Amino acid sequence: MSKSATAAKNVKSIFCIFILMKIINPYNKKELGSVELVDLSGALNKVKSAKNAEPAMRKLSAFQKSTILNQIVDGINKRFEEFVLTIARESGKPYLYAKGEVQRAIETFTIAAEECKRIPHESFDLDASARGKGRRGEYRYFPAGVVFGISPFNFPLNLAVHKIAPAIAAGCPIVLKPSSKTPLTMELLNSVIAESDLPEGGFTLLHCSREVGNEIIQHPDINVLSFTGSPTIGWEMKAKAGKKKVVLELGGNAAAIVCKDANYGLALDELTVGAFAYSGQVCIHTQRIYLHQELVDQFKKDFVSRAQQLTVGDPSSPSTNFSVMIDEQNAKRIESWVNEATAAGAQLLLGGNREGAYYSPTILTNVPKEAKVRNEEVFGPVVIVESFESLQEAIEEVNDSRWGLQASIFTDSIIQLNQAFDELEVGGVIHNLSTTFRVDEMPYGGVKDSGFGREGVKYAMMDYLEGKLLIR
Amino acid sequence: MSKSATAAKNVKSIFCIFILMKIINPYNKKELGSVELVDLSGALNKVKSAKNAEPAMRKLSAFQKSTILNQIVDGINKRFEEFVLTIARESGKPYLYAKGEVQRAIETFTIAAEECKRIPHESFDLDASARGKGRRGEYRYFPAGVVFGISPFNFPLNLAVHKIAPAIAAGCPIVLKPSSKTPLTMELLNSVIAESDLPEGGFTLLHCSREVGNEIIQHPDINVLSFTGSPTIGWEMKAKAGKKKVVLELGGNAAAIVCKDANYGLALDELTVGAFAYSGQVCIHTQRIYLHQELVDQFKKDFVSRAQQLTVGDPSSPSTNFSVMIDEQNAKRIESWVNEATAAGAQLLLGGNREGAYYSPTILTNVPKEAKVRNEEVFGPVVIVESFESLQEAIEEVNDSRWGLQASIFTDSIIQLNQAFDELEVGGVIHNLSTTFRVDEMPYGGVKDSGFGREGVKYAMMDYLEGKLLIR
Amino acid sequence: MSKSATAAKNVKSIFCIFILMKIINPYNKKELGSVELVDLSGALNKVKSAKNAEPAMRKLSAFQKSTILNQIVDGINKRFEEFVLTIARESGKPYLYAKGEVQRAIETFTIAAEECKRIPHESFDLDASARGKGRRGEYRYFPAGVVFGISPFNFPLNLAVHKIAPAIAAGCPIVLKPSSKTPLTMELLNSVIAESDLPEGGFTLLHCSREVGNEIIQHPDINVLSFTGSPTIGWEMKAKAGKKKVVLELGGNAAAIVCKDANYGLALDELTVGAFAYSGQVCIHTQRIYLHQELVDQFKKDFVSRAQQLTVGDPSSPSTNFSVMIDEQNAKRIESWVNEATAAGAQLLLGGNREGAYYSPTILTNVPKEAKVRNEEVFGPVVIVESFESLQEAIEEVNDSRWGLQASIFTDSIIQLNQAFDELEVGGVIHNLSTTFRVDEMPYGGVKDSGFGREGVKYAMMDYLEGKLLIR
Amino acid sequence: MSKSATAAKNVKSIFCIFILMKIINPYNKKELGSVELVDLSGALNKVKSAKNAEPAMRKLSAFQKSTILNQIVDGINKRFEEFVLTIARESGKPYLYAKGEVQRAIETFTIAAEECKRIPHESFDLDASARGKGRRGEYRYFPAGVVFGISPFNFPLNLAVHKIAPAIAAGCPIVLKPSSKTPLTMELLNSVIAESDLPEGGFTLLHCSREVGNEIIQHPDINVLSFTGSPTIGWEMKAKAGKKKVVLELGGNAAAIVCKDANYGLALDELTVGAFAYSGQVCIHTQRIYLHQELVDQFKKDFVSRAQQLTVGDPSSPSTNFSVMIDEQNAKRIESWVNEATAAGAQLLLGGNREGAYYSPTILTNVPKEAKVRNEEVFGPVVIVESFESLQEAIEEVNDSRWGLQASIFTDSIIQLNQAFDELEVGGVIHNLSTTFRVDEMPYGGVKDSGFGREGVKYAMMDYLEGKLLIR
Repeated sequence: MSKSATAAKNVKSIFCIFILMKIINPYNKKELGSVELVDLSGALNKVKSAKNAEPAMRKLSAFQKSTILNQIVDGINKRFEEFVLTIARESGKPYLYAKGEVQRAIETFTIAAEECKRIPHESFDLDASARGKGRRGEYRYFPAGVVFGISPFNFPLNLAVHKIAPAIAAGCPIVLKPSSKTPLTMELLNSVIAESDLPEGGFTLLHCSREVGNEIIQHPDINVLSFTGSPTIGWEMKAKAGKKKVVLELGGNAAAIVCKDANYGLALDELTVGAFAYSGQVCIHTQRIYLHQELVDQFKKDFVSRAQQLTVGDPSSPSTNFSVMIDEQNAKRIESWVNEATAAGAQLLLGGNREGAYYSPTILTNVPKEAKVRNEEVFGPVVIVESFESLQEAIEEVNDSRWGLQASIFTDSIIQLNQAFDELEVGGVIHNLSTTFRVDEMPYGGVKDSGFGREGVKYAMMDYLEGKLLIR
Repeated sequence: MSKSATAAKNVKSIFCIFILMKIINPYNKKELGSVELVDLSGALNKVKSAKNAEPAMRKLSAFQKSTILNQIVDGINKRFEEFVLTIARESGKPYLYAKGEVQRAIETFTIAAEECKRIPHESFDLDASARGKGRRGEYRYFPAGVVFGISPFNFPLNLAVHKIAPAIAAGCPIVLKPSSKTPLTMELLNSVIAESDLPEGGFTLLHCSREVGNEIIQHPDINVLSFTGSPTIGWEMKAKAGKKKVVLELGGNAAAIVCKDANYGLALDELTVGAFAYSGQVCIHTQRIYLHQELVDQFKKDFVSRAQQLTVGDPSSPSTNFSVMIDEQNAKRIESWVNEATAAGAQLLLGGNREGAYYSPTILTNVPKEAKVRNEEVFGPVVIVESFESLQEAIEEVNDSRWGLQASIFTDSIIQLNQAFDELEVGGVIHNLSTTFRVDEMPYGGVKDSGFGREGVKYAMMDYLEGKLLIR
Repeated sequence: MSKSATAAKNVKSIFCIFILMKIINPYNKKELGSVELVDLSGALNKVKSAKNAEPAMRKLSAFQKSTILNQIVDGINKRFEEFVLTIARESGKPYLYAKGEVQRAIETFTIAAEECKRIPHESFDLDASARGKGRRGEYRYFPAGVVFGISPFNFPLNLAVHKIAPAIAAGCPIVLKPSSKTPLTMELLNSVIAESDLPEGGFTLLHCSREVGNEIIQHPDINVLSFTGSPTIGWEMKAKAGKKKVVLELGGNAAAIVCKDANYGLALDELTVGAFAYSGQVCIHTQRIYLHQELVDQFKKDFVSRAQQLTVGDPSSPSTNFSVMIDEQNAKRIESWVNEATAAGAQLLLGGNREGAYYSPTILTNVPKEAKVRNEEVFGPVVIVESFESLQEAIEEVNDSRWGLQASIFTDSIIQLNQAFDELEVGGVIHNLSTTFRVDEMPYGGVKDSGFGREGVKYAMMDYLEGKLLIR
Repeated sequence: MSKSATAAKNVKSIFCIFILMKIINPYNKKELGSVELVDLSGALNKVKSAKNAEPAMRKLSAFQKSTILNQIVDGINKRFEEFVLTIARESGKPYLYAKGEVQRAIETFTIAAEECKRIPHESFDLDASARGKGRRGEYRYFPAGVVFGISPFNFPLNLAVHKIAPAIAAGCPIVLKPSSKTPLTMELLNSVIAESDLPEGGFTLLHCSREVGNEIIQHPDINVLSFTGSPTIGWEMKAKAGKKKVVLELGGNAAAIVCKDANYGLALDELTVGAFAYSGQVCIHTQRIYLHQELVDQFKKDFVSRAQQLTVGDPSSPSTNFSVMIDEQNAKRIESWVNEATAAGAQLLLGGNREGAYYSPTILTNVPKEAKVRNEEVFGPVVIVESFESLQEAIEEVNDSRWGLQASIFTDSIIQLNQAFDELEVGGVIHNLSTTFRVDEMPYGGVKDSGFGREGVKYAMMDYLEGKLLIR
């Protein structure tokens, strides 16, 4: 991160030192703007301000929270195009997908505006025990306190909104640290939120270094940590979390299984998107495709053909559906991984080319087990196509991974779908859709190294709430 | 009913006239015992006693209700064999199936013993509206009052228990009128219940004529009617129910669809049971089987062969799995319906023979649309086998009926199962099992002429409860 | 109704005869407009058109239903003032309350727009029984068919919306017959709905005579009846409903209990509104107030004083909070009931004056048990104030009624509130608020003669849906 | 722990070294028996055996799990007296309370036998988003893997059962390490479980040193940690838990508020039990009592009098209700804490005497803020009685603590109860009962330093399950 902070300005004050960080368009290298990084004392001030907002946030009625969340929806709608272009420019995400992301962020806030009215309270009799005769229990949920959210570059808007919207809906102040690569989208959202009736301190945008962020994680005034990013950082965070609740949305290595009886055309359509959307920089990017052996040869041809038809260009253009990666460093990492695989015997069906931060759509087959493109989260436009004989074999292959976010299966067989759902070691099994399918109200999250807990508005809300029992 | 009351004794008293009704074993015509039918004033006394039990029933804690229901379970277990034989003897149900029914009655009471501890109370905030700021709602369920249950002959134990167990679990007194053909099983249960801690008047067994029953239906001290029996009577009852809640479990004309990709052996096994168990005297008896045209010829052969292997004999014998019908009158009705069908062109693949109350396993094909065995509820060991070309056609054929209880589909195709579930006009769609599948906790009931409301312990309980809202 | 149809025009056509009915402002007798009443064949055409809309309505996704319902919200908002004035003019409801009603109708549609996304589907394992090993159940809700809604004059908008909004949310076409006294508000809503994306036939406004309405009730193409109105008509309707589901929201005779420890000022404020809002023409109008004997004398004085401060005038004026009744006929009925009570010994503390359709705020005490103002639903600006010694006595007094809609209690005692909630025979117990408290998402409805079933968006929806079970 | 292992025997084997630990009756110092502690490799073998049981446990149907849990209930019932006496002897818990504990353990297993049939699965439409049209979600819960439970000495049976019963109900193997002070009760339960149909490895009893336990905590084959014990150990465990789920039930410092309007006699009865049951060795022991200033003087007298009436004696005797503490070490700790308080100005109203492991019922007042008996978890028969002027002050006093398990309030005021529930920083607010009230189905657990997560059978089960989503 310090590397990308190409210029720095020291601002001496009683409390804080600010560092100015420039934001660069990864496609054309133009400077898009800059944000100031705060030092630890600046960050602590922000946490304090969030803590001070607790009583005001807690007192908000569902009517008020819903009103605020709908104001934010209106605010985003008013500046819709600006949001789309900011995302496209700072993250290199093609306009088409950036637009989809803004629409989803609106849906996420809308769901939160509805869910805040439906916080589930339990009410029950206690007379199942002789000792509880005439007694009733009421289990109600209250805001858990300050949420510290950390969001990644790949969905600069919606993956932050998946923390902000539930926090507001739950009545919790939230401090949000966006990726240092894509802070401008959050700056925009910040200005939208500032126009709503959200109590002061209810939402705090924090730009800081990872080191400062690490200090904040351990601060006792933070009650909930919600992190979306890399596993190494995530699991360390959990160990340092102390008494806090923790939600981790980490990486994946999503696989799709295409059975012999699958709707072939549907699988082809869906997996082309799954493999190459936003250059694979998606947690649930389709990294591995396992096809029944009778389908695999045809699929390789068709899949290569589809990948070749992608429209490469400026992400800000509505006609582009494939563009650069977030930075050259990552493109180089992909390049080395693909080279490692081919050196070890993998066959390159398409791609394998890099030019600066651009990495071309790449399809591999016969990839050795130990290759990084097989085992690690590739987070780039690389996909492996392999064949299987039996579903059992395919499932074992998918499960042979330390990751477990989502997996797809294409079939019309009830028996096969049931087996896949029962045995696949993932957070979500997607039937007849790409691994990248997600609607914002569904429970979303991974098992194994892929995460801890679930997001999806009402699921996230439960982690931001704390139950309290009344016996009366 | 008056016909089967072969002897009558007038007992003059201040309140009641009793009529003694003899109960005859339909298999060997031996007299099994007798019960006394009460007249209207006798019946009214029983309703009054139930009404008087309301406060005591309402005050029972979940712990007490659960204890009582478990005492009844223990009581049935102690006299298990006696229950089985009483059912087998008075209803002609083969020992094997009678045993299954007693086991199910035990499950039904057990579920009730658990569900009475889990009456769902809702608790919610009202601050979604500005007018409800700081206000909470609590929606609790209280016993609705006296239940009047009317149960049929074909499951003399468990279909009565499906009214008795939920009533006790809900805290409602229940008056139960069993079929006049099979009252002895209920006499046995009555003596078991009498040994439990159920408050006096909590369970009242009522033997009376249909005319007297009709008066009781309209009595203002009855709050809920739960009837299992014929549609004509059921729908009349609803019209006369006044302010009462009504649950009707009426007839059916269940159909099974066997798709081309079905597990053929499984379908054959399941449908043999579905068609001939207890001589088809089951509401969800498999009356119609629609097979894909490529399967139908083979199926006819195999199905006839299976039906021929049924062990016919005394219902009291554990080796019997096919026996007499409830009475000769019904066997004659079946005979005339089958004759009507064959006269109109239907082809008889097997059976069609009557001997007294016995009617042999009967399989028909090419049955004209207007035949009674196609359109009415046959309630006998008769099944129609037809073919279809497309699933759409099969579904339309199944739906071409005024009945809508349950239907089966045998397939491994997700698309076909989804279509069937979406389009079949029934209360329950059963995948890869006979139409007769039922476990006692599931919601059970029909649409169209087949019924109104759902049974299954916790679903029945909801009809015996009345919600009351507290705003505070 | 024929009386109020002051002019009639016979329109001969192949199908229908229309009768033109003039609508008169009850305050100033000015004609506000007219609607055409259809005859039976016209009504049948409308039912047929609703039936034809079933497939289109059933196919709507939650997204589409939600969009349509929000379009209606927008449409009402755009013509907000027009709605308020139409209600004020045709029903005589003061502007202030008419405005509140329009706001509530918007809330009702908004809740429906949210609830249509949350239709609860149950999913459960069946392996609690040995016979269900490996089996799962899924219980899903589908639209029940055509709803026939009949709504009253007193909330010409929101009580119709309480049928329309849930019907759309459930995916059911609805035919709505408004009161013949206040059809213009529905005409306005009809034009708003017409501008939405609701499929043709999804909403049908039906103006017809009661006789024609009675025929429609029994029509087999109607699947659900939802009636708000008088008990006599309601219960007759239930008897004639055949296989239909029925929801009845009938009259009330609401009572409030003010305990010795009550917040006196709060009780005074709330009950003034409860007793006199919209001249008591509200189902949950506070008709009886029972005060602890130590409070009653002071309360009589203060309550009379409050009632005297009401601002009487033109309902169309924002400053008015008390005005005429719906028609002179009803004002005369009230007059005679009050006279009956005073003749029998009741003491008049205030009011008792009539002038045309205007009846003044009236407070009575020492009212004999048998007086109509004590026992029947007064539906006018009359309230009875009595005293009690013990809470037990007060509860018995409240329960000594054939009605059971809502009741209030003012106390700070947990013991007293619990006792009231446990023992009051009503649909809703309201703590520290007027009996007229209602927010549109809460379950609302009565027991005893006051109704059958519950409204409140999601509760109404459940009556418009039919469960179907899938065993797989 | 090594200190209390008064004798040791080295058993050399290929895998393990066993240490023999003697168990001593704290009341009469008699040896009750001994258990063997395993070393690390022995413990690892046990974890491996649990891991191997995963598939068998996962395959159990609800019917099977329920059967097993009921078998355990039967097994405990058969040896009821033996359980009671083992608890009384090894823990020094008076017979009366030991009996209550065995009854509760039976209830806990019974609840689990019922809840395993009711694992909640969610089913929902995804068509609220345009992208989800026609799609459904199903969110099902699967066993999370091996549970490692660590239970304390004070409820040697039921607090272990609160981990074992939900684990079996959830289908998870469990390794249970009991307190080294009270392992014999678990040995007894182990032999009962061994007679059930639980698959081999489903339950594993582990006796080991804390050091070995610490290694096990970090073992990757463990998926869930459930610890009941001291906060220091608990929070360290959370930091070392890696990717595991963690539930912590730690200490408390429960306070009761007695308002001016309280039912005084009830408060006196309840708080005598809350303060002195099992010598205060209960997490929710009533350690602090705050009374309204008008009640405090009378209460001090009455409370001392009640405490003096306790029957001190052998815990194995049914007439005893007060006896020794778990060991002399703890009695000495209490002694020093009380001395510290009195030295700092606290006034001793009763007790303060120690004799070996016996510490007499002790009541203090005017205790300085900084005293350990005020701030730490006393876990002994010591209670502080103080007065307050306003409820606000009392709540602040209760909240002025790093603990937050349960708190009681005695009042009849709705306003006061609402305020207490809203503001008390605890897991459970108990109205008109001792702080020690717990029924085994309720959610139980603390906030602040008192814990993380909730137990209570169905709440614990949710932590032993992992959700998996199916989109279809």
